[in-house]
Amino acid sequence: MTDKSTGLTLNRGLWFEDFAEGFVVETKGRTITEADIVNFAGVSGDFNPLHTNAEYAKDTQFGQRIAHGTLVFSVATALAYQLGMLDDTSIAFTGFEMKLRGPVYIGDTIRVQIKVGGRREMKAAGGGLVTFDVKILNQRDEVVQKGEWSMLVRSKPQQAPVAHAPTESA
Amino acid sequence: MTDKSTGLTLNRGLWFEDFAEGFVVETKGRTITEADIVNFAGVSGDFNPLHTNAEYAKDTQFGQRIAHGTLVFSVATALAYQLGMLDDTSIAFTGFEMKLRGPVYIGDTIRVQIKVGGRREMKAAGGGLVTFDVKILNQRDEVVQKGEWSMLVRSKPQQAPVAHAPTESA
Amino acid sequence: MTDKSTGLTLNRGLWFEDFAEGFVVETKGRTITEADIVNFAGVSGDFNPLHTNAEYAKDTQFGQRIAHGTLVFSVATALAYQLGMLDDTSIAFTGFEMKLRGPVYIGDTIRVQIKVGGRREMKAAGGGLVTFDVKILNQRDEVVQKGEWSMLVRSKPQQAPVAHAPTESA
Amino acid sequence: MTDKSTGLTLNRGLWFEDFAEGFVVETKGRTITEADIVNFAGVSGDFNPLHTNAEYAKDTQFGQRIAHGTLVFSVATALAYQLGMLDDTSIAFTGFEMKLRGPVYIGDTIRVQIKVGGRREMKAAGGGLVTFDVKILNQRDEVVQKGEWSMLVRSKPQQAPVAHAPTESA
Amino acid sequence: MTDKSTGLTLNRGLWFEDFAEGFVVETKGRTITEADIVNFAGVSGDFNPLHTNAEYAKDTQFGQRIAHGTLVFSVATALAYQLGMLDDTSIAFTGFEMKLRGPVYIGDTIRVQIKVGGRREMKAAGGGLVTFDVKILNQRDEVVQKGEWSMLVRSKPQQAPVAHAPTESA
Amino acid sequence: MTDKSTGLTLNRGLWFEDFAEGFVVETKGRTITEADIVNFAGVSGDFNPLHTNAEYAKDTQFGQRIAHGTLVFSVATALAYQLGMLDDTSIAFTGFEMKLRGPVYIGDTIRVQIKVGGRREMKAAGGGLVTFDVKILNQRDEVVQKGEWSMLVRSKPQQAPVAHAPTESA
Repeated sequence: MTDKSTGLTLNRGLWFEDFAEGFVVETKGRTITEADIVNFAGVSGDFNPLHTNAEYAKDTQFGQRIAHGTLVFSVATALAYQLGMLDDTSIAFTGFEMKLRGPVYIGDTIRVQIKVGGRREMKAAGGGLVTFDVKILNQRDEVVQKGEWSMLVRSKPQQAPVAHAPTESA
Repeated sequence: MTDKSTGLTLNRGLWFEDFAEGFVVETKGRTITEADIVNFAGVSGDFNPLHTNAEYAKDTQFGQRIAHGTLVFSVATALAYQLGMLDDTSIAFTGFEMKLRGPVYIGDTIRVQIKVGGRREMKAAGGGLVTFDVKILNQRDEVVQKGEWSMLVRSKPQQAPVAHAPTESA
Repeated sequence: MTDKSTGLTLNRGLWFEDFAEGFVVETKGRTITEADIVNFAGVSGDFNPLHTNAEYAKDTQFGQRIAHGTLVFSVATALAYQLGMLDDTSIAFTGFEMKLRGPVYIGDTIRVQIKVGGRREMKAAGGGLVTFDVKILNQRDEVVQKGEWSMLVRSKPQQAPVAHAPTESA
Repeated sequence: MTDKSTGLTLNRGLWFEDFAEGFVVETKGRTITEADIVNFAGVSGDFNPLHTNAEYAKDTQFGQRIAHGTLVFSVATALAYQLGMLDDTSIAFTGFEMKLRGPVYIGDTIRVQIKVGGRREMKAAGGGLVTFDVKILNQRDEVVQKGEWSMLVRSKPQQAPVAHAPTESA
Repeated sequence: MTDKSTGLTLNRGLWFEDFAEGFVVETKGRTITEADIVNFAGVSGDFNPLHTNAEYAKDTQFGQRIAHGTLVFSVATALAYQLGMLDDTSIAFTGFEMKLRGPVYIGDTIRVQIKVGGRREMKAAGGGLVTFDVKILNQRDEVVQKGEWSMLVRSKPQQAPVAHAPTESA
Repeated sequence: MTDKSTGLTLNRGLWFEDFAEGFVVETKGRTITEADIVNFAGVSGDFNPLHTNAEYAKDTQFGQRIAHGTLVFSVATALAYQLGMLDDTSIAFTGFEMKLRGPVYIGDTIRVQIKVGGRREMKAAGGGLVTFDVKILNQRDEVVQKGEWSMLVRSKPQQAPVAHAPTESA
């Protein structure tokens, strides 16, 4: 997004070159509510009683319903998207791998810590592959999932932001 | 959002002082789908046949179903929120007034142009009131709604961003 | 809706001529649940942490998550629609202006008081513009929003309800 | 709903005594969209491929996806509710029986014809049981479901509408 | 579903011939949450205050909001679908009749007991009509709805499962 | 699920011992609709214009909106869940890794091929870790995602299914 009068860019996505080793960001948080679990069951089609049956869940190791691991993961990627750090600079989300470390209960608030784990230039693709080390944390700073996301990111255009302009109103 | 290693702020909200006359921004766009209208009818409870009955809508001046004016308005405020320009700097959304100028059909893509229309310092409130002139446009650059939104925005802290720090992980 | 045996009209919309000064109605009430806020965030795209992050909201002036002002407004217009008082007699919703007066918390129940504030005949349009003064109240009778809605309303047909008949099954 | 200035009742529910033999009403219509089927699968948990798999549905007798019979039935009861004819006068929905006569495809528009089939006073319950003969029709006037709904309906208060007043703001 | 290496069928639907008198099954359970009621109001369009207005519901015989009877019924049919016992063997859901026996409150967990009540061969249709006696129970084993569902079910193919193969990937 | 009269188990989950090398299953299919993408944007919070803005998507390499990779992945895990092959026998979903190979467009129908890739007994945990090789395919049999899911699965009880009984009504 660009302030047309001042040229100030508020939500500029970052280029491949900007993702140096040591780069660390943290997303906003989001509370995972009972409604989120109900809605995610409905969108995905996964009505596992661990997520949708309070009586059943009582007798499990968790003692209550928990969020789908895929819900937690999906919200985490959305929190990362909301940072705007790849707006118009990502070419593709190429892969992810996650370990599930702990449950997310109704009412827990998750956020994501993202740091650059690795980077490899891919000139033919017009950018490079960035591997992000990712931790999803709850409000008690416990890691609930951790892993790695891979993104193909555009390189900084050699000559000015002109080439970038057409997408600004998207 | 702050890159903890470099201190680079990606999504910094703007202070009252940043909203000078002449400031103009434009949001991303969003396509209003049939599903959005169905979902909005369900969330709001407004099942007016103009939005939910294709047979009825055929015989109206529009010739087809149209989006709720309140859906268009709600999405517009969300597109503005997504700019991040008031992240942690808004105190309150105090009011809005809109004129409905034209229909939004299924498949139309809307975006919002926002410029500073007026500003009034309110020291007691710790900031000032900013009035934004707002136009909601479709993909043919037709104005579908226009009006004014009022926000109470925090003033830039006198001494450093320290006071602002506690909310960063929110 | 018409009882075909008796001709009794249950949900007849009112004509422009019916909206005399002094006309006052009140809608049913609706409880704004956590699920409504979650769903509205999803439909609008506004995931402001004030609405979606319980940890963040604790530290705000409200001490807890609150409903989007646009959710409250959207539900209010739907509650008004549900009265059926403009069924097949409204030509267009032309504009609205609202002041936000107080928060709506999870579990609050809102309803709307609507009275005729002004009216102006517009013969060319086949009716007239009615301005409604609107108050959205919670279960403690506190005004959470107030303002004005403008509707273009059809005039009573000169000769009988015949012209009105084709839309009855809509 | 009552116009407080004029006492005009717009959405008055009907009493047991009002449901004479021969009473017939018809609801508004609603288009059953792809989004409705997707959402209903999610709310109910019924992802039968006949409703959610376009490839599978091609090879069935219907040649395409169809709406859940329970979705059609649920929307029909809601269309009936929206008539307002039992607002504050129903005591309970006691039973229903339906025959499924034909498919509802994506884009079909359904409406409901309701007539009084039988009535039995139940003084002890403060009203009586009304049996409604119900037909759900599509936009080609084909019957897609037909059957019977039973409601226990309050009797008209002997002395004036005073007893009815407390519920008006509900 | 078929394990292609071993030929083991996990979710094989049952044939008309399999539904002997005395056949009884029970579904998994599902907790009806506030979010389910909110979502079902939105999908169906039934915003009866008994389901959506906590203040109103306090003053009713139930003392609180209850689930729509149609929500409970719809979830029950979905729980039955999830058993997979009619996967690719049902021809049509031909009818249902239910008596509503008691309320389902927010947080109640329902499940369904299904037994074969009657069966009638219908050679021309390639199978037979099975009538299931159905009870919907809550977590206290109280019957909240009971009735009868009718399904037209395919007969076991005379020569091998070959005719059944094309649908396996559906 | 157990047929109480015959003891026939329809949806019995499989034990760790049942997952031999060479075990292969395939799920049902599900069509990814525009409504699914809209709903998933709303549940996750990811409104990337590639998924929500038809005008923007036209100018990308895909030429149209595509489904979120996380939506495709979430639906795939749900399709696997629906097989019932781990009902009451899974201890935990411990991790996943996926490569994104191709886009899923509105209207594409996906299904999942799952085979046992590896297994390691973990006596202390009461079962073993099974690694599934997973391919998500569209209706043209193109692989859109592929990878590996890890599940901790219960071992077959030494003495009879008695230990398993308490969960049957869940």
